[in-house]
Amino acid sequence: MIHVNPHYQKLQASYLFADIAQRVRAFQQRRPDAELIRLGIGDVTEPLPPACIQALHAAVDELTRASSFRGYGPEQGYDFLREAIARHDFQARGAPIAADEIFVSDGAKCDVGNFQELFATDIRVAIPDPVYPVYVDTNVMAGRTGAAMQDRYEGLAYLPCTAENGYVPQLPDAPVDLVYLCSPNNPTGATMTRAQLQAWVDYARAYRALILFDAAYEAFIRDDGLPHSIYEIPGAREVAVEFRSYSKTAGFTGVRCAYAVVPRDCMAWQADGKAVSLHALWNRRHTTRFNGVSYPVQRAAEAVYSPEGRQQVRALTDGYLRNAATIRAGFQAMGLPCTGGDNSPYIWVDTGRDAWEFFGLLLDKAAVVCTPGAGFGRCGRRHVRISAFNSQANVEAAMQRIAQALA
Amino acid sequence: MIHVNPHYQKLQASYLFADIAQRVRAFQQRRPDAELIRLGIGDVTEPLPPACIQALHAAVDELTRASSFRGYGPEQGYDFLREAIARHDFQARGAPIAADEIFVSDGAKCDVGNFQELFATDIRVAIPDPVYPVYVDTNVMAGRTGAAMQDRYEGLAYLPCTAENGYVPQLPDAPVDLVYLCSPNNPTGATMTRAQLQAWVDYARAYRALILFDAAYEAFIRDDGLPHSIYEIPGAREVAVEFRSYSKTAGFTGVRCAYAVVPRDCMAWQADGKAVSLHALWNRRHTTRFNGVSYPVQRAAEAVYSPEGRQQVRALTDGYLRNAATIRAGFQAMGLPCTGGDNSPYIWVDTGRDAWEFFGLLLDKAAVVCTPGAGFGRCGRRHVRISAFNSQANVEAAMQRIAQALA
Repeated sequence: MIHVNPHYQKLQASYLFADIAQRVRAFQQRRPDAELIRLGIGDVTEPLPPACIQALHAAVDELTRASSFRGYGPEQGYDFLREAIARHDFQARGAPIAADEIFVSDGAKCDVGNFQELFATDIRVAIPDPVYPVYVDTNVMAGRTGAAMQDRYEGLAYLPCTAENGYVPQLPDAPVDLVYLCSPNNPTGATMTRAQLQAWVDYARAYRALILFDAAYEAFIRDDGLPHSIYEIPGAREVAVEFRSYSKTAGFTGVRCAYAVVPRDCMAWQADGKAVSLHALWNRRHTTRFNGVSYPVQRAAEAVYSPEGRQQVRALTDGYLRNAATIRAGFQAMGLPCTGGDNSPYIWVDTGRDAWEFFGLLLDKAAVVCTPGAGFGRCGRRHVRISAFNSQANVEAAMQRIAQALA
Repeated sequence: MIHVNPHYQKLQASYLFADIAQRVRAFQQRRPDAELIRLGIGDVTEPLPPACIQALHAAVDELTRASSFRGYGPEQGYDFLREAIARHDFQARGAPIAADEIFVSDGAKCDVGNFQELFATDIRVAIPDPVYPVYVDTNVMAGRTGAAMQDRYEGLAYLPCTAENGYVPQLPDAPVDLVYLCSPNNPTGATMTRAQLQAWVDYARAYRALILFDAAYEAFIRDDGLPHSIYEIPGAREVAVEFRSYSKTAGFTGVRCAYAVVPRDCMAWQADGKAVSLHALWNRRHTTRFNGVSYPVQRAAEAVYSPEGRQQVRALTDGYLRNAATIRAGFQAMGLPCTGGDNSPYIWVDTGRDAWEFFGLLLDKAAVVCTPGAGFGRCGRRHVRISAFNSQANVEAAMQRIAQALA
């Protein structure tokens, strides 16, 4: 008899965004006339940068002729892309990362979900609260937690992120082996300073822990003092893996390209204490279970680093950051405390009431979709995440409607 | 201290195709003048069908305007593609599969590697020998085997496929819970008849086992009596998951699109005997760990089902099948027994000697790359897999060179 993975039974309810989609559909059936504005899931709305469009067309044309046709590429990604990434995203910022330490993939969600497979099931995992649910759910599925107790899983070390600590996870009281960090943060929009990241790197080195650093929103950093990559921090190459994505940077949510950085210095340990290269382990996993990213898509990602591409991506992210400033200012004017929104497309609003109740209020009274913070963890029970990914006109309209609804 | 997944240490050597690539590189350094012909890895060589090219360009153009821009799509794939698949690939053949039972993905390698995550680690897994290594390696990584003993893993039930049984896996002596089947087969090119598949479906129903049916080479079937889908077999909806791919059909190895079929009737069991829907379980996995296939790529896959697309794909596969016939006839003329090559792009040649030795011989004497059967399992120790994925001219040249080399 074929038995299921027993850990799946521990998973709570359905996935956050599916819940939201269901409630929005119900609202649309009740109010088919309402013009909905979505500031929820964090999907981009603006067209792809022209440099990427051009690269896509050119690459597709290469596939029309046997002489320039490309079939299977390297599972890790083409050198043209890995080299552009290493040069522009890391070396240009003084972060010592080589092209062969880059693993191109079809999404940071996949990478961040897959990476935990490399580790034993009995390691102790630290998860910020609030948090992107994928970090938690993939560890539940893998059997690294006990049962769910209300809104938390037994066996996970939760790192509360609240107004008191500026929404930045603090070092844990008891030793942990694997730590998920995200800066600029999803969902809070908070950013980690160099000193805060250094403290985590020092911690990981002292305890032989590993940091999974999610930098999917790096392109929104405007403050020159903030690190863009964890590899700007001395010692990080030994204890950190970094995840990046073109989804929010260049509008690739529907095009699909991302990458993971696994430095050759990065080690984990066998039960007998022998060091194992995470680069080798991830390479084995990646080549066995993945077949590379679509060739035209890799060319589009390469175009992000061209002079035109960089300018166009900057204009895109500047636009979303203007929206973020509008949202932040709007909620603050209503007397609701906010974090994020300056180096991040997300604004984390302390609503002063139950998050799903506030979500329902915005939906019913303003026809605006936000994301209830409760879906990201216990510490989000009074918060909502507002996303700046929409047109300027929609964001301004949404903020006017919200102001009226809350007046 | 961060401990690694101990099961990765059991994995033998490196991945088959990486080994081959290394030997080929060494040969090219020794003989930089040699014009290599690759009949090895099974990568396609002919350009994409024009219908797919046109669909790609059109979809890319949609991404240039906010009004037609598409960001995140449904993780399971767009309805336009799922409906085309259900209609053309299944319903048209009398296989009762609905659009919402299709899960679009970026590769059959990923699907077939990921699917085992849904099951408990102590299930008993049956694997044909020879076999596509991904079935084995992903179960090793998940901890479903013991250590490797020479060329096999403890705890797996191997199903030998030899000349005696026509290279078709027979029902096992002891009960198994999960069975991997592939028809037309990679690597042997053998196909399973309706009666053979029915026997497996009946077995799975009797033992509450599950069949993972890999039909990535279905488009090469020309014999009207052979089933294209396991769902043509009565009862299969309850006990089988099927994997398909556009890689070999429409030349998508570098474009990346595939799908899995998980019927709503398909069940697995909790330890307490309660039935669990595999459709629901896979949907949870897919939405948590995957973010959908690139939108232009899904449009290209849809175009495979247009009247032009179907004609163009037929012409492509016809061409490769002509090559296969040439290869098969060539080896048979040399007195080497073959299977496959009529409803399959692969020819499995019984070389009468050690497979890696024969691989080295073809490389050194004919500058032709094949795949040593030993890389697919113990039963392939005397075989090589020859792939028909190349131009007609190259295949003819390769067969001439091989005939000379072996003369």
